[in-house]
Amino acid sequence: MLKTTTKLLVASALIAGLSTASMAKDKVYKWKLATTWGSTLSPFFDAPTNMAKMVEEMSNGQLKIRVDASNKHKAPFGVLDMVKGGQYDMGHSASYYWKGKDINTLPFSTMPFGMTTPEQYSWFYHGGGMQLMEKVYKKHKVLSFPGGSSGSQMGGWFREEIKTLDDLKGLKMRIPGFAGEIMAKLGLTVTNIPSGELYTSLERGTVDALEWVGPGMDIKMGFHKIASNYYTGWHEPGLDLQFLVNERKFKKLPKNLQQILITAMRVSAYDMYIQNYHMSSEAWAKMEKEYPNIQVKTFPKPVMDAMKEANTELRKEIVKGKPLLKEILDSQEAYQKKVRKWTEMSDYLYLKDNLK
Amino acid sequence: MLKTTTKLLVASALIAGLSTASMAKDKVYKWKLATTWGSTLSPFFDAPTNMAKMVEEMSNGQLKIRVDASNKHKAPFGVLDMVKGGQYDMGHSASYYWKGKDINTLPFSTMPFGMTTPEQYSWFYHGGGMQLMEKVYKKHKVLSFPGGSSGSQMGGWFREEIKTLDDLKGLKMRIPGFAGEIMAKLGLTVTNIPSGELYTSLERGTVDALEWVGPGMDIKMGFHKIASNYYTGWHEPGLDLQFLVNERKFKKLPKNLQQILITAMRVSAYDMYIQNYHMSSEAWAKMEKEYPNIQVKTFPKPVMDAMKEANTELRKEIVKGKPLLKEILDSQEAYQKKVRKWTEMSDYLYLKDNLK
Repeated sequence: MLKTTTKLLVASALIAGLSTASMAKDKVYKWKLATTWGSTLSPFFDAPTNMAKMVEEMSNGQLKIRVDASNKHKAPFGVLDMVKGGQYDMGHSASYYWKGKDINTLPFSTMPFGMTTPEQYSWFYHGGGMQLMEKVYKKHKVLSFPGGSSGSQMGGWFREEIKTLDDLKGLKMRIPGFAGEIMAKLGLTVTNIPSGELYTSLERGTVDALEWVGPGMDIKMGFHKIASNYYTGWHEPGLDLQFLVNERKFKKLPKNLQQILITAMRVSAYDMYIQNYHMSSEAWAKMEKEYPNIQVKTFPKPVMDAMKEANTELRKEIVKGKPLLKEILDSQEAYQKKVRKWTEMSDYLYLKDNLK
Repeated sequence: MLKTTTKLLVASALIAGLSTASMAKDKVYKWKLATTWGSTLSPFFDAPTNMAKMVEEMSNGQLKIRVDASNKHKAPFGVLDMVKGGQYDMGHSASYYWKGKDINTLPFSTMPFGMTTPEQYSWFYHGGGMQLMEKVYKKHKVLSFPGGSSGSQMGGWFREEIKTLDDLKGLKMRIPGFAGEIMAKLGLTVTNIPSGELYTSLERGTVDALEWVGPGMDIKMGFHKIASNYYTGWHEPGLDLQFLVNERKFKKLPKNLQQILITAMRVSAYDMYIQNYHMSSEAWAKMEKEYPNIQVKTFPKPVMDAMKEANTELRKEIVKGKPLLKEILDSQEAYQKKVRKWTEMSDYLYLKDNLK
């Protein structure tokens, strides 16, 4: 039998051991996430919010993520830099916002005449997309993950109907990014206007047309009250948002918390797609009922052909001297060519037989 | 200063306290899941396998789920009963397999001329579908969750081309379920044949036609080697599989493990849809290259119209005296009518302008 003092020592050692193990295991990680969006921009802002909620519940409060809207950190387009620099552990934004810093980030959001949402997710998860995204973001020392798809976006609200290519010439339109460059090639004057001024700009004729997202997000903006030509999409067939994670911070997390974080990001991205699908369906039903004069139109074939031609030319120009960008665009193009055949055989032909 | 013996008592009490708390928190839960599928049936079997892996990693090994294929438990269509009875904690199957026991389980898989995958998930998560599913499964004391979508399935392999309604009369076809009843109304002899005998049946002419899933899963079966008319789908536009959980066992899990389980089921269901999308695209490319004689066809309009008519009649018959079934089918129909308009404006018209 051990002596009392020995017993005491053993007991103390046991307590110390248990406490240390318990402390390491129970260490609470408090993270911050910066979004490009304001807190009322549903469903974009909902994706990181839902993600943080799931993480906290699954980790039993061990990983808490505070989600900051853009009005808090005042740098909506500084999200990549803030995550890179460690001021924020995570971000929620869109990859194509970083094209000025690194052109290779462009294709991970969406490309004109590109893949639909299920096609793009197939490419990400089974067609080499994730590996290419990792390759691009490694040099920024951040990890990048799909952050939620808007689905196919609408081509925008036009005050006047577009009957010919000539109707586009001289038109002032708010349409940012690569799609804006295509429209500029077709003779439009392309401008970018802060979102808060869009409604007034369209109402006063400062712009003749603009695109935003789709019915689910457009309805709050009120464009349907002042323009009645709602064109179908061509330029953002499956815009995907992006979760960014500081690589160094991620590596410091225990393995199970890493897995919890990855899973929560993955599911909240899918969820956002479904949420926006529902919101668009509800919003369109409301718009159609309250404003029966709104007409859904597709651009006439000559306009569409001119857009496609401009797109092909711009893609050729943009990859010059940029082998990694070329590699990514080539990978998407090859994947799309193959997967589109399946989309046609399955959903497309099913829908064709069941519409009207 | 406390006396040594008192110290010892305090120390012992502390150890005991820590151990108990630690034990409760670290208690390992070992669960078993029964699938309707064999272990080689990809991607159906992959969904529960991936789910179990995620759960184990996220819970740091605290919840381990053993996934049993059908050859292990020998009761592929006994999954609901085994989960209900507690022999298994969980299951992975398809809701419409239980229609013989409870007709209200039928609509949660898919319905002929029904919703596509994103439409159906919007209904589940935002259109009241989950609440209706809960209502149906509550009486069986199990929880039911979406378990992965096959996407739009193909209408099947036909040895001869179908040019008129008359070509269908007397044809022997393997097509199970509600869709089989529709085909029977059109004059086909509908049979069900175990999957292992399907290839030989088609080869020897025991059946003239059969449907399975789509290229991704059909390719292993080899039907493309012996039939060249591949018809597009109408009967299972977004077949969703199902996770089943024994309610009593679920309630015994700590809250964070419940959340881990729910999240892992949810993400692995979405993942299966994307996996099958990719597999179908790859498989079709291979089939098309190796068997260039295969032709993708849609049924002629009079055939399609007759199917729709039979579908409408059968739906009217089936709900007689079944108010809950009527409530579910009405909910789906109303949701589909609304959401289909958005599908048409977004993906459908985008694809239409970009095919050929």
